[in-house]
Amino acid sequence: MTTPLHPLVEPLRALLGQWRGVGHGVYPTVDAFDYVEQVSFGHAGKPVLVYSQRTEDAATGEPRHGESGFWKVADDGRLEVVIAHANGVTEITEGSVVAGHIALRSTVIGLTSTAKQVLGVNRTFDVDGDELRYSLDMAAVAQEMQRHLTATLHRVG
Amino acid sequence: MTTPLHPLVEPLRALLGQWRGVGHGVYPTVDAFDYVEQVSFGHAGKPVLVYSQRTEDAATGEPRHGESGFWKVADDGRLEVVIAHANGVTEITEGSVVAGHIALRSTVIGLTSTAKQVLGVNRTFDVDGDELRYSLDMAAVAQEMQRHLTATLHRVG
Repeated sequence: MTTPLHPLVEPLRALLGQWRGVGHGVYPTVDAFDYVEQVSFGHAGKPVLVYSQRTEDAATGEPRHGESGFWKVADDGRLEVVIAHANGVTEITEGSVVAGHIALRSTVIGLTSTAKQVLGVNRTFDVDGDELRYSLDMAAVAQEMQRHLTATLHRVG
Repeated sequence: MTTPLHPLVEPLRALLGQWRGVGHGVYPTVDAFDYVEQVSFGHAGKPVLVYSQRTEDAATGEPRHGESGFWKVADDGRLEVVIAHANGVTEITEGSVVAGHIALRSTVIGLTSTAKQVLGVNRTFDVDGDELRYSLDMAAVAQEMQRHLTATLHRVG
């Protein structure tokens, strides 16, 4: 039996499932890089989606980044996302979802003692059927907010 | 083929696997409650453990809390943990692991616009073979730091 989706997260229904694709990363402090990414959005009937993501080096297949968290729609329709990153960063972003376009801006970034100095992130997601495109802008390590990641994923489950 | 555990997280090896058990919650602002909990610690060969947890109401089986994140051992042996909570909280705790006893104190708490006002958490974990006991103290909603959760889990995988 499939658990019904909670009505509050109905605006996020298009995200549900497993996604896989290729992304590209740039930043002034690192060499450009390509990665293979897997993303999962699920739910357990509560008004929140369960999110996880991991990437591998596109050339070597070695594990790279990982993150996990929860996506919620508040009573007033605002989107609230909490994410923990494998590299010692916690991220809270808030924003909106309108007709398959999601825009999020960070409101709180937490860092462990040894984490990279991330100051802020802005994310966009565009869902069009079985295609999910995203971008992530980041301000970190004394660099102003700028494009860091772009990826195009396809539904695989 | 099993991926070898990264040497830096060797002190956390005893946590690896699937755990299940029963917990009890108290707080001045809520009725005492019992819950069934499932916890997973895994890894992908990187110097970090992948953590997730979810609970159900012990009486009704309804989903309650969920959290996920990553556990890392820094080069100097300190433990750094980043966790995102389904209720809109992000948590960074740091501490130590000594002979199966883990002690963590929060250094950064993040809250979404609609999250409960959590101010800080202290956690302990004790691993003894196939038994995992933990406690969580919390300062929140104008209450001082005090015991909130205790649970005893057993290895199921």
